[in-house]
Amino acid sequence: MENVSIIYGKNSVIEAMMSGTREFNRILISNTCRSDEKIDYIKKQAQSKGIVYQFVNKEKLNAAVPDANHQGVIAYLSPIKYTDLDDFIEKYSKELVSVVVLDGIEDSHNLGAIIRSAVCAGVKGIVLPSRRGVLVNSTVEKISAGAVNHIEIIKVNSIVNAIQRLKEKNYWVIAADHHAKDNYYSIDYTDINVALILGAEHAGVSKSLLKLSDFQVKIPMLTNFNSLNVSNAAAIILFEIVKQKMSVSK
Amino acid sequence: MENVSIIYGKNSVIEAMMSGTREFNRILISNTCRSDEKIDYIKKQAQSKGIVYQFVNKEKLNAAVPDANHQGVIAYLSPIKYTDLDDFIEKYSKELVSVVVLDGIEDSHNLGAIIRSAVCAGVKGIVLPSRRGVLVNSTVEKISAGAVNHIEIIKVNSIVNAIQRLKEKNYWVIAADHHAKDNYYSIDYTDINVALILGAEHAGVSKSLLKLSDFQVKIPMLTNFNSLNVSNAAAIILFEIVKQKMSVSK
Repeated sequence: MENVSIIYGKNSVIEAMMSGTREFNRILISNTCRSDEKIDYIKKQAQSKGIVYQFVNKEKLNAAVPDANHQGVIAYLSPIKYTDLDDFIEKYSKELVSVVVLDGIEDSHNLGAIIRSAVCAGVKGIVLPSRRGVLVNSTVEKISAGAVNHIEIIKVNSIVNAIQRLKEKNYWVIAADHHAKDNYYSIDYTDINVALILGAEHAGVSKSLLKLSDFQVKIPMLTNFNSLNVSNAAAIILFEIVKQKMSVSK
Repeated sequence: MENVSIIYGKNSVIEAMMSGTREFNRILISNTCRSDEKIDYIKKQAQSKGIVYQFVNKEKLNAAVPDANHQGVIAYLSPIKYTDLDDFIEKYSKELVSVVVLDGIEDSHNLGAIIRSAVCAGVKGIVLPSRRGVLVNSTVEKISAGAVNHIEIIKVNSIVNAIQRLKEKNYWVIAADHHAKDNYYSIDYTDINVALILGAEHAGVSKSLLKLSDFQVKIPMLTNFNSLNVSNAAAIILFEIVKQKMSVSK
């Protein structure tokens, strides 16, 4: 294990253990941490899987993840494995799937929240640019409530190239843009592969990506305070897709 | 001004200035903060409104709001004015409105994000319990992107009493609960006053409130990872209401 990630919080540690995709180095539990169901689960799982766990001073945890609400538990483990875009496309070539393409999200809370909603909405992949915006870090893992272990995270050098590749492979590209004419719920998502592009917190989706998109959609507001957080925008559109798919499958 | 709140970040300060409802004591700007449109706007507004602003060392800002991304600007100002529930009901007695009732939200990020989405969705009020969960603080103001200044924040001693009062006044009470049978989009929201109850992050909506509610609704998921963040759940339901209202008004 060359690279090591740190995750914190009971749910993050439990989800990473349950996923079976992460190699644990060790788990540190604060010796002032009260035993509860979750802590007991972590200890039992660690024992059965041969993962070392130690009780340490709370200060050691505070130092390892400063300013973070670690709830008395942190783990050192192998980082998330990023997926190659072509491998992803090949893996899901036999079914209709949705991916979320993030054009430079900067805030770890937003990335974690989007991944969490995406997993709930049955999205199979998240596409991230390797050099702009945030990647999966400890905060993203925590905020995602462990959802990072239930979805393919695809890191690409160029979002433009990734979108072109997805289009070649029969994905319909839908960009969220508050200047768009169409409402997000005017699209029929039930019979297509969806690549939903969401832009960075301030800049939105870049012009080159808007040009490449098949549809541009907005979320209409009932006030002039037109300033939806990007993770909430993602949730609104993704659950419109869920709703349409559930209505069809009835 | 007996009580003083601190807000931080360019947008929070601008929104509070524009709202006209807050009394500013003074604004501190970091002397290493680069001038940009927003900083210029803050300075001009301060000059025209007679608000004192000072350039200070960044360390002074760091000390005032530790661990916060203040973007080089903080302001000391009068706290948010909480609204009385009966005053709110009276004020909006002539129109159909929505309120969001929060049953003990603990995380400032979640409260800020819910307020932000609520304002975008045209919600007129947020009901908070005075003694459980978080109230409006600096982080809530920042995460709300200033939305706290565009909605009535109603603080009540008892959420149960508040719900009973809303019911008497012809509000339909809808509780989000992931055990519910009905889906959130099966309700017709277009012709009613809505009181949408969302529960605390872990506990959900309490049983006494579920009993009082007219409808209980769930957000159906496409996976077993049934763990939507409360602010994203709020956004999904609130924008279903927006969508229905926009469809009717056409």
